Amino acid sequence: MVALGHDVKMGSRTAKNAKAAEWTKANGPRASAGTFADAAKFGEVVFNCTAGSVSLEALKQAGGKNLGGKVLVDVANPLDFSKGMPPTLTVCNTDSLAEQIQRAFPDAKVVKALNTMGNEVMLNPGLVPGEHDTFVCGNDPQAKAQVVEIIRAIGWKNPIDLGDITAARGLEMMLPIFVRLVGTLHTRIFNFKIAT
Amino acid sequence: MVALGHDVKMGSRTAKNAKAAEWTKANGPRASAGTFADAAKFGEVVFNCTAGSVSLEALKQAGGKNLGGKVLVDVANPLDFSKGMPPTLTVCNTDSLAEQIQRAFPDAKVVKALNTMGNEVMLNPGLVPGEHDTFVCGNDPQAKAQVVEIIRAIGWKNPIDLGDITAARGLEMMLPIFVRLVGTLHTRIFNFKIAT
Repeated sequence: MVALGHDVKMGSRTAKNAKAAEWTKANGPRASAGTFADAAKFGEVVFNCTAGSVSLEALKQAGGKNLGGKVLVDVANPLDFSKGMPPTLTVCNTDSLAEQIQRAFPDAKVVKALNTMGNEVMLNPGLVPGEHDTFVCGNDPQAKAQVVEIIRAIGWKNPIDLGDITAARGLEMMLPIFVRLVGTLHTRIFNFKIAT
Repeated sequence: MVALGHDVKMGSRTAKNAKAAEWTKANGPRASAGTFADAAKFGEVVFNCTAGSVSLEALKQAGGKNLGGKVLVDVANPLDFSKGMPPTLTVCNTDSLAEQIQRAFPDAKVVKALNTMGNEVMLNPGLVPGEHDTFVCGNDPQAKAQVVEIIRAIGWKNPIDLGDITAARGLEMMLPIFVRLVGTLHTRIFNFKIAT
């Protein structure tokens, strides 16, 4: 995001997080760090990049007031590693993390995006040759359009809009096959393509 | 399967099922019909093509003794349409229909296969241009090899082997995104490809 010309404030539990400080130093004047609340206050668009199992707690620390009216891009996956590998999902089937977040922060415009590939590919789709896909869903069409614009700037050509936020169930439920494919292919550099 | 030169007996709840009789008539001397038990007794390889929500009951009627030692290809998905659209799964996350079947019929060699695309594409992969994927998983390597051979004969080039039967969780959990994509793309003629 910094490389694309955005000012980015990374939030964490404390304002003096060592990794955040390191990242700030490495990324120049557009990069800064603070608490979750600082980051939520700062951002016009807020990305939830926390572990899915603690996202609701992290966003609570970010603060409903700071998130109100803002586009909240949820890239997290509700993976539960507490019972070992492979992880299970903390929520699925009749609900999803993105829906839990939307219900907990009704004034935020939650858009689920970029949760179906490894983070390497997420930020560099060209790592996987040829065409492959990414998806968005959310209840607010304008928020989705804004996220699609950001995703395109990263290099994703045609994000597939799956409709309202309940589509996040399907997107998050792709994780078990993703995890299994990592084991089978012995790499995280792959992605789903919808062949038509 | 008949077109590929196999003798096929279609099983249903009764020996005189009207649709099965119609299918038999349309498919020549290699096609026959009977009860689930008749079909299970007859087949060297048995396909479970029943609705996932009733598969265990149908297979119980087929009979554990008739299924014992046989390759049991599970193409079903545990979709629950009872609460309307979109369907949810009757089992997922920490278990799967294929695992339930394997547990209920420990002497069968369950292979999950062909559950991640519409039935039109399942039997005619060429309907979707270019390369796209299908998957298998199961506990018995020889049974999987036999199923892969059948799948190749249908026209699938490189079925991806995801390992043991627990991978069926991931395969069945692809259904919610599949259903959502049908709504978005307004067609069932598409498939997943793993781009690498």
